[in-house]
Amino acid sequence: MQKLNIDTNVYLYPMPVVLVGVEVQGKPNFMTVGWVSRVNLKPPMIAIGINKAHYTPKGIQENGAFSINIPTRSMVEVTDYCGLVSGRTADKSELFKAFCGELHGAPMIAECPLNMECKLVDTVDLPSNYLFIGEIVGAYCGEEFMTDGNPDIKKIDPFLLTMPDKRYWGIGEFVAKAWSVGKERKVT
Amino acid sequence: MQKLNIDTNVYLYPMPVVLVGVEVQGKPNFMTVGWVSRVNLKPPMIAIGINKAHYTPKGIQENGAFSINIPTRSMVEVTDYCGLVSGRTADKSELFKAFCGELHGAPMIAECPLNMECKLVDTVDLPSNYLFIGEIVGAYCGEEFMTDGNPDIKKIDPFLLTMPDKRYWGIGEFVAKAWSVGKERKVT
Repeated sequence: MQKLNIDTNVYLYPMPVVLVGVEVQGKPNFMTVGWVSRVNLKPPMIAIGINKAHYTPKGIQENGAFSINIPTRSMVEVTDYCGLVSGRTADKSELFKAFCGELHGAPMIAECPLNMECKLVDTVDLPSNYLFIGEIVGAYCGEEFMTDGNPDIKKIDPFLLTMPDKRYWGIGEFVAKAWSVGKERKVT
Repeated sequence: MQKLNIDTNVYLYPMPVVLVGVEVQGKPNFMTVGWVSRVNLKPPMIAIGINKAHYTPKGIQENGAFSINIPTRSMVEVTDYCGLVSGRTADKSELFKAFCGELHGAPMIAECPLNMECKLVDTVDLPSNYLFIGEIVGAYCGEEFMTDGNPDIKKIDPFLLTMPDKRYWGIGEFVAKAWSVGKERKVT
């Protein structure tokens, strides 16, 4: 196999797509983010990497809170829009029906199947981005997106982002059971 | 829409699946990781959240380096195996053909379509996990997984992880162009 050196600004294949909710100067704002990951097991924490030039960091710093909202595929147009325009110049507060949980400053999107409200616990100051680490203090799922009391990926029907081709993709077919399919190799 | 409170230990839907390569006491070791994200634009940085109880943190701390390798779908069994067994008890150094780039201590997997070698720049000490932040100093892609000089998601054919259902999924159909489909909303 021939390996080629490629640009180190390589993106992870593929990235989940979420909408981050904050409140800036008393008004909800929503931004599309692909740099997001769970980072701690107990208590549950999630991290988002956001360019310092964006408007969203102001809200996170003001209130020490943010929300993570997983959009479903039919929301792809409005989700992309939230990544195209800044809260500095466009009012995105009316795009969605927002609801609140325990925290002030973490407006969640009713239309998104899955929502998490996060309390800021740490900010890593990286060269061009802030890495905001939040504890998930509340999580909410639409009943119609659940099966047997758990969020169901096929019902949530989220989408993925790839770069540098700049495309959104759906979830494909079931491949295998995790923590399971490798067991055959383990015992041989 | 009826929203239900769910367990806050909610996982992001869906998560990319990568193999993290390290060298522990002079021997390559590979671990399956789903908590991974790009976190900084310039220079390119990536972060991984790994439970402190694992063997892999020893290697990252020893050498200040790690690799990120994106497995293709046909590698699902061996990838799952790398998440089932610890380097403490199993020798995973012979599972793959390893190659090295610029860094010592960041063995990469030749069989994986896409590889990144990362120099540790920061470690965030969270309650149960370390969040290792690495600068991507080298990136490599198999020529047969590229189109027009860029990694091609359909050729790479990676897979995703969902929790708590513990399943791997393929990449689905093209949904829309990012930084594009939302423009219609912008101009109206």
